[in-house]
Amino acid sequence: MTGSIGIFDSGIGGLTVFKALRAVLPNESLIYLGDTARVPYGTKSAETVVKYSLECAKFLVQRDIKALVVACNTSSAYSLPALNKELGVEVIGVIQPGARMALLRSKTGHIGVIGTPATIASNAYARAIKEIEPKARVISQACPLFVPLVEEGWLDNEVAFGTAKIYLESFKNEKIDTLILGCTHYPLLKPVIGKVLGAEVSLIDSACAVADSVKDELGRQNLLAGSSHKGKYQIYVTDMAARFETVAHRFLGGDVPSVKRVEL
Amino acid sequence: MTGSIGIFDSGIGGLTVFKALRAVLPNESLIYLGDTARVPYGTKSAETVVKYSLECAKFLVQRDIKALVVACNTSSAYSLPALNKELGVEVIGVIQPGARMALLRSKTGHIGVIGTPATIASNAYARAIKEIEPKARVISQACPLFVPLVEEGWLDNEVAFGTAKIYLESFKNEKIDTLILGCTHYPLLKPVIGKVLGAEVSLIDSACAVADSVKDELGRQNLLAGSSHKGKYQIYVTDMAARFETVAHRFLGGDVPSVKRVEL
Repeated sequence: MTGSIGIFDSGIGGLTVFKALRAVLPNESLIYLGDTARVPYGTKSAETVVKYSLECAKFLVQRDIKALVVACNTSSAYSLPALNKELGVEVIGVIQPGARMALLRSKTGHIGVIGTPATIASNAYARAIKEIEPKARVISQACPLFVPLVEEGWLDNEVAFGTAKIYLESFKNEKIDTLILGCTHYPLLKPVIGKVLGAEVSLIDSACAVADSVKDELGRQNLLAGSSHKGKYQIYVTDMAARFETVAHRFLGGDVPSVKRVEL
Repeated sequence: MTGSIGIFDSGIGGLTVFKALRAVLPNESLIYLGDTARVPYGTKSAETVVKYSLECAKFLVQRDIKALVVACNTSSAYSLPALNKELGVEVIGVIQPGARMALLRSKTGHIGVIGTPATIASNAYARAIKEIEPKARVISQACPLFVPLVEEGWLDNEVAFGTAKIYLESFKNEKIDTLILGCTHYPLLKPVIGKVLGAEVSLIDSACAVADSVKDELGRQNLLAGSSHKGKYQIYVTDMAARFETVAHRFLGGDVPSVKRVEL
């Protein structure tokens, strides 16, 4: 089946989802759009997040995609109903896959969630978890400084550690055994988060969870590309800032496809 | 002379300029626009900053303003030529007033500048300083984490102190005696910056500098409101995020006029 998988994110953090999809589905072609001109979404209102998400999605739908992956947690938390209503294509967000993976991993059912202020305010992870397992206990914490820390590349210095200590303090009393990293930037802070919470807390990376979900969903609908097909990659951004290449390399671990700037 | 003073900023940091103008020119009516839907500008490209700045300015020009104050340092660094060309109104940015005040204050002519990545990349402060005093020595440093720190309200904890120590380290060897706080958010970090650099370094707040410049400029052009006129205040934002009120209070020190959301 031809047609690409479209992926959008508020910025370039969603490249972690791009990277996971490229690894899990090497035959699929991927088109990524990062709304870098208006990043971040995570500090903005639901109304603005939905409006921007629809604009991103429409750009991708015009490019012959067979499925749309919403890599941004904030956008997934608010925009899925609008996207499902307005687009004639399969839409997959990161919240459901992350919630399912956390429940698979947790033994005690005490699950922590960290995310942007908007994602946490939406309560979307807690709802998704409790829909599957009503007895689960979900504790949430917004971590607004984690995104700028990652973009600055301060992943394991004393500022990163001090910030993580303040945000994650409350989880220690709650005895969680699983923590959902509910923002595409956060997996880069795994070492520091692990140091604060200890090795007994499993860290759930939604990027990996969503890649498996996309594979399952496309398989179920007979939409997977044939094994002889070689995936092609396109990356679009709405603003090309000076630090783009540096930060993109940080997320993709090298191997960055060529990038085009577009207006939405 | 009727007509308001228009002020725009990438977000709500420019309320420090609003506050300074309200204090210095109590007879003037002020209209403020914060582009909170697309904040921040300081990590974006020159092209995008100019485009957004023109959209903000046009919104204000339609509202019968006699002068336009560009409260955002990043926007002042890139957009003044375009704004001067396209608008038929006096445009005043924060860079020139800040540079002049720094030169008045400095004894050694060794001046530090901190700002967003875009402001520092523009080199606008160094150019403005050297145009007035070619012998001055200007040392610049981008501080991308200072804005999110202020928005989080972490103004004097150990994370704020650790961040300031890393960013300001280089100034210690350069023996500066004056530091320009080249971003509307930074004055809220004065205590921490002062602790790192010591009391012998003067901190220049562009918000105060620009308010004096506006008064001089309007006086020179005979555009000041009469002393019987009572200033009225309007605040517009492009997105109304949940934390808006909290952060606005932090910048204005209480006394926040009613706020309307608009689309540009």
